[in-house]
Amino acid sequence: MVENLHGVFAALTTPFENGKIAIKHFWENIQKYNTCDLAGYVIAGSSGEAAYLTEEESVTLVKEALETSAPDKKIIVGSARESTASTIAFTKRMADLGIKAALIRTPSYFKSVMTSEALKNHYYAIADEARIPVIPYHIPQVTGISIEQKLVIDLSKHPNIVGIKDSSGNLPFLGEVLPNLPSDFSYLLGAGSVFLFGLSLGASGGILRLADVIPDLCATLYNDFLAGDWEKASKLQRDVIPLNNAIIQKYGIAGAKYAMDLLGYYGGPPRDPILPLEASGKREIEKILKSLNLIK
Amino acid sequence: MVENLHGVFAALTTPFENGKIAIKHFWENIQKYNTCDLAGYVIAGSSGEAAYLTEEESVTLVKEALETSAPDKKIIVGSARESTASTIAFTKRMADLGIKAALIRTPSYFKSVMTSEALKNHYYAIADEARIPVIPYHIPQVTGISIEQKLVIDLSKHPNIVGIKDSSGNLPFLGEVLPNLPSDFSYLLGAGSVFLFGLSLGASGGILRLADVIPDLCATLYNDFLAGDWEKASKLQRDVIPLNNAIIQKYGIAGAKYAMDLLGYYGGPPRDPILPLEASGKREIEKILKSLNLIK
Amino acid sequence: MVENLHGVFAALTTPFENGKIAIKHFWENIQKYNTCDLAGYVIAGSSGEAAYLTEEESVTLVKEALETSAPDKKIIVGSARESTASTIAFTKRMADLGIKAALIRTPSYFKSVMTSEALKNHYYAIADEARIPVIPYHIPQVTGISIEQKLVIDLSKHPNIVGIKDSSGNLPFLGEVLPNLPSDFSYLLGAGSVFLFGLSLGASGGILRLADVIPDLCATLYNDFLAGDWEKASKLQRDVIPLNNAIIQKYGIAGAKYAMDLLGYYGGPPRDPILPLEASGKREIEKILKSLNLIK
Amino acid sequence: MVENLHGVFAALTTPFENGKIAIKHFWENIQKYNTCDLAGYVIAGSSGEAAYLTEEESVTLVKEALETSAPDKKIIVGSARESTASTIAFTKRMADLGIKAALIRTPSYFKSVMTSEALKNHYYAIADEARIPVIPYHIPQVTGISIEQKLVIDLSKHPNIVGIKDSSGNLPFLGEVLPNLPSDFSYLLGAGSVFLFGLSLGASGGILRLADVIPDLCATLYNDFLAGDWEKASKLQRDVIPLNNAIIQKYGIAGAKYAMDLLGYYGGPPRDPILPLEASGKREIEKILKSLNLIK
Repeated sequence: MVENLHGVFAALTTPFENGKIAIKHFWENIQKYNTCDLAGYVIAGSSGEAAYLTEEESVTLVKEALETSAPDKKIIVGSARESTASTIAFTKRMADLGIKAALIRTPSYFKSVMTSEALKNHYYAIADEARIPVIPYHIPQVTGISIEQKLVIDLSKHPNIVGIKDSSGNLPFLGEVLPNLPSDFSYLLGAGSVFLFGLSLGASGGILRLADVIPDLCATLYNDFLAGDWEKASKLQRDVIPLNNAIIQKYGIAGAKYAMDLLGYYGGPPRDPILPLEASGKREIEKILKSLNLIK
Repeated sequence: MVENLHGVFAALTTPFENGKIAIKHFWENIQKYNTCDLAGYVIAGSSGEAAYLTEEESVTLVKEALETSAPDKKIIVGSARESTASTIAFTKRMADLGIKAALIRTPSYFKSVMTSEALKNHYYAIADEARIPVIPYHIPQVTGISIEQKLVIDLSKHPNIVGIKDSSGNLPFLGEVLPNLPSDFSYLLGAGSVFLFGLSLGASGGILRLADVIPDLCATLYNDFLAGDWEKASKLQRDVIPLNNAIIQKYGIAGAKYAMDLLGYYGGPPRDPILPLEASGKREIEKILKSLNLIK
Repeated sequence: MVENLHGVFAALTTPFENGKIAIKHFWENIQKYNTCDLAGYVIAGSSGEAAYLTEEESVTLVKEALETSAPDKKIIVGSARESTASTIAFTKRMADLGIKAALIRTPSYFKSVMTSEALKNHYYAIADEARIPVIPYHIPQVTGISIEQKLVIDLSKHPNIVGIKDSSGNLPFLGEVLPNLPSDFSYLLGAGSVFLFGLSLGASGGILRLADVIPDLCATLYNDFLAGDWEKASKLQRDVIPLNNAIIQKYGIAGAKYAMDLLGYYGGPPRDPILPLEASGKREIEKILKSLNLIK
Repeated sequence: MVENLHGVFAALTTPFENGKIAIKHFWENIQKYNTCDLAGYVIAGSSGEAAYLTEEESVTLVKEALETSAPDKKIIVGSARESTASTIAFTKRMADLGIKAALIRTPSYFKSVMTSEALKNHYYAIADEARIPVIPYHIPQVTGISIEQKLVIDLSKHPNIVGIKDSSGNLPFLGEVLPNLPSDFSYLLGAGSVFLFGLSLGASGGILRLADVIPDLCATLYNDFLAGDWEKASKLQRDVIPLNNAIIQKYGIAGAKYAMDLLGYYGGPPRDPILPLEASGKREIEKILKSLNLIK
């Protein structure tokens, strides 16, 4: 049984150089994140451009993360494939490496038949076989699959499904479903612009791209929340919204990586077909970081 | 110049009996709401089934509200029509009656040509002529029209556009646009499930259907926020989410009216084509009100 | 009992001059359309900017159309309001004037509760009271309401619901539902870009904005279809698609009215908030009409 | 240079038995399809559950198809990956095997940054490297990516992009863009319910799941079209719509495979997470096949 997952997880980006994984930069980034008050790292998630990684590249990243991470950081890996069997196979491989939990996006290719029953069967089969805790991942803006409250409740009853990551940003959904989940079920937010509000509704933590760029501020926000310092926390939440909007919807991964470059991490280029950030996007990211007093 | 609009406005429902407006019940409801710590009332808004009212029915309601409201309550009227000219005409009629401000939903029939430029022209023309303050109303889930941040900023520059009502529940949008608006521009939330969070991002108040059902709790939530008692406020926000979800999305007006009936207000039936609430919906509303200790 | 409605109906635009209805131009347009092989006219439909007309303006247009139309043209009126009662009242008023049938768009304001059951009750209540034949109108791109096949079949069973206008352009829907409808039930297409294909699947005719601009070509297309001259019909259908796309989605009513102006009808300006056509849009309309050899 | 692709391609399903590819059944199915008047086969497309296949499984299927297909059948392979580099790598591997062309779905994971420019770069990079003709694949209902007309025109200018598969079923789009494409550019429809109509607007053929179930009827439809026998063709198109709707949207792959089982092909079970067809779905498929006189 995994203990409840809480706090801020950084959804690590994958550093590329000339189209290849630049493992040295990955190592450097983790060294820096190790000094921050983060709960752990997610490898090969959306922010890691997992959709663009080969299986061996993912394995390389996971091994490096397991080796380099500070002992207090938990390693979670995005291990979803579209088919149930492939997801099980890759999740088992991850389990053998010794990771803490598997983050598994809803399958979505055949949308019209991805009913609650199909999704429940999928996750139960994985959780039965996986040998590590399983965390379903709800990200309807990417997958086109919106899960129902009843499905979350059903999933929470499987002993090996220990939580959910919810990037929908749908607080009315979260607020209604959460009181119906076991108290040790982890509800992890993916939407950095409403992180504080999700916490105040009972979420246990977040898996955030924002924590790649400003890990300390994310940790501060979480700690202010824990300390009951709402005024400070809500001011901080307000302040980081334009940055989060820029690195998620508006400029995506390319925006996040450029912000990382400006702040002393290695961001580097995204993989094709994502285009590199244009000059106007760079200027907007710079302007946002200046307004946060993070660069001059 | 209107002072900043803040606090909780109840978006009043319209009481019907045998298909006609039951003005006595409207009067009774307002008498009760007058004793609550509400900033005012919205007449002929979405919650008032304005789409189902004739112009004369709206006028009747507005006159009654102006007469019956306690002096400290501000009266706002939903005065949108699809055409610019009709909206101006009805808004002027409302101005003659002495209301505080006009709430004007985005036109939406010809979606593909409702560009930011068309909407700006529409609201500027209305605000030029209206003689009372104008509040554009953003409700994309009903209209299919999502406005852009730049449009809100442009609208805020007209001296007679004093605020916006935003029912999108889109907090990342609110959080990013609000710092770019004049400090005396009122940002009024329509999404009761995230009311507290919008306030903490700088919104000035809310126009809520929820305040028809539980006006005192809505006022308490707002006052707890003002007093900096975040713990109490966020617990209250969390507690009211299932009720708000039920009376907006799930059961709509029929659900709100049934909850009002249970709590001593006159809810009564909605107008056709809205169906009356079925037995299962009634039971769920009852269960929610019981869990809030509002009925036994 | 109305006979089956078939052939091409022009969904007439409403001529404005200085913001007022220009009844003389309406008369002139009808005089010209009277010489075409059209089945009739729809007054106060979407193309008539009905959303921007007062009730009295609609009545004025209907009276003029009844007087001016050639005896072989059927007059249908868009008589939808959001509430059941208002729709019945206006439809009865239209019945008193002597129109052939009422075209009634799905109500849509309270989307989340506009179930098939609510819509069936709505249309049955109207059809029971209306004293003239009723034609439900399906236009999901405007209303956000997609009706189900079963609802169409249920509606077709009411003796006073004589047909449907379907502007969805959804041919797989049409093709599957149509064999389940009574043979005297009229299926009228609203999507000019697939008019021929709908006919070939069994639709009886169309109510087309395109017929305001090129009534003769629309009639030719229909007659070629009836004559079994598929080659000519499909070439014509292909040729008119860019024009239809331009006057519906891309430039809307403003585009349609400009094309009418170029072709000897009175188009004139749309009402606010629709913006007049910009120069680039005018050039594109001109280019399309030139490629059809309709202007030089 | 590939000659223009025309006629009916069957988008082959992948036969599974106990979760493994049942290559014998694949062989049997192709033997049967070889006797039909089909232009060729698509391997590892959507209908082949490509999303659920490992790379080696895809290779196995392609090798078998190349060996078993009649010499007049062209083999096209779905070779899309999300990243440009992986797509190139797999497409080259396919080129080495000797296939005719690669069918490449739009990447879609990072929707908000999949601009026309990003997609153009993606396809140009692939087409530059692929050594076999490339066919972009537009399927917005699965990917959430709707391409613009201008992008199709831009793609058609690359000498190695020889056509497009369009499963949107959007005939107004097809009808407007097609006259702007080179005459030797192949436009292949994926929407079986409007196959005839796309052909009549100038499409060159189709890649159809429907052709897995009723290859002869699909070929007949195409040949009737070529022969100018519109009456027969349109009756056939009308007749097959309910079957096509059932095996695409309503019951998906599971429905298609069940229909294949009933008609003498090997359909078998889909892979998890797709659920097997329930009894009510089976009955509906049976009813549809009976109404087509394909089973008793």
